Amino acid sequence: MFTDEYFMKIALQEALTAMEQDEVPVGCVVVSQNRIIAKTHNLTEMLNDVTAHAEMQAITSSANCLGGKYLKNCTMYITLEPCVMCAGALAWSQISKVVIGARDERRGFMSKNLSLHPKTEVIIGVLENECSQLLLDFFKSKR
Amino acid sequence: MFTDEYFMKIALQEALTAMEQDEVPVGCVVVSQNRIIAKTHNLTEMLNDVTAHAEMQAITSSANCLGGKYLKNCTMYITLEPCVMCAGALAWSQISKVVIGARDERRGFMSKNLSLHPKTEVIIGVLENECSQLLLDFFKSKR
Repeated sequence: MFTDEYFMKIALQEALTAMEQDEVPVGCVVVSQNRIIAKTHNLTEMLNDVTAHAEMQAITSSANCLGGKYLKNCTMYITLEPCVMCAGALAWSQISKVVIGARDERRGFMSKNLSLHPKTEVIIGVLENECSQLLLDFFKSKR
Repeated sequence: MFTDEYFMKIALQEALTAMEQDEVPVGCVVVSQNRIIAKTHNLTEMLNDVTAHAEMQAITSSANCLGGKYLKNCTMYITLEPCVMCAGALAWSQISKVVIGARDERRGFMSKNLSLHPKTEVIIGVLENECSQLLLDFFKSKR
């Protein structure tokens, strides 16, 4: 039951919530021992804050929940490949696993030859089509 | 009067405050039209949050002060070269100018071949010795 697809679907729901609020539709879920400890979406417009990406909120929120700043034994599900800022934050967090939906060829950390923490497992392309379609729909509606 | 050294000295005071709270001593000041709109220091230990670097707090705080998420016409004074996370955040903010005290050869964004926003002017080495001495003293006291 608790597959990567299962949790990515919940991240997608978060992305949809962002879209309804006219935010770039990116959603995120953090899981610890099959329990969701953070569920966030992009809030840069609402908060007027470029740092309010889904991942940044999820890292802060998960650390609060766990009572420690390191996210060992945690998995983040994120509908879009993290940017440089979020990749840097994930590296500091020492998170165990990051599961990515769609790639971001232009802004994603992989295109900058960055890597996360050496101990972090990275999985790419879970529900990729659904994750990228949401973004395509959003940017199409903006043109 | 309002030289880069003037504002870096205030950032150094912030770094000293961090040190007194047993935080890695990094301090930051954001200036808009010669007015200080944010003054922050590293709070990762106190907040139990890897994202609580001085720069991240300063970006959020400055955007709040200005009522907009972009930090155009702003200068950030930071005692230590920003890490990957903070460099990514600064790039999103489109800040006009970043003045750096000490280099961070190991964790700084320059060693990862990253750059800030194309429009951001970067100045390195203002009060470099004072900024790095504080860090050296801190890490020596930890050993």
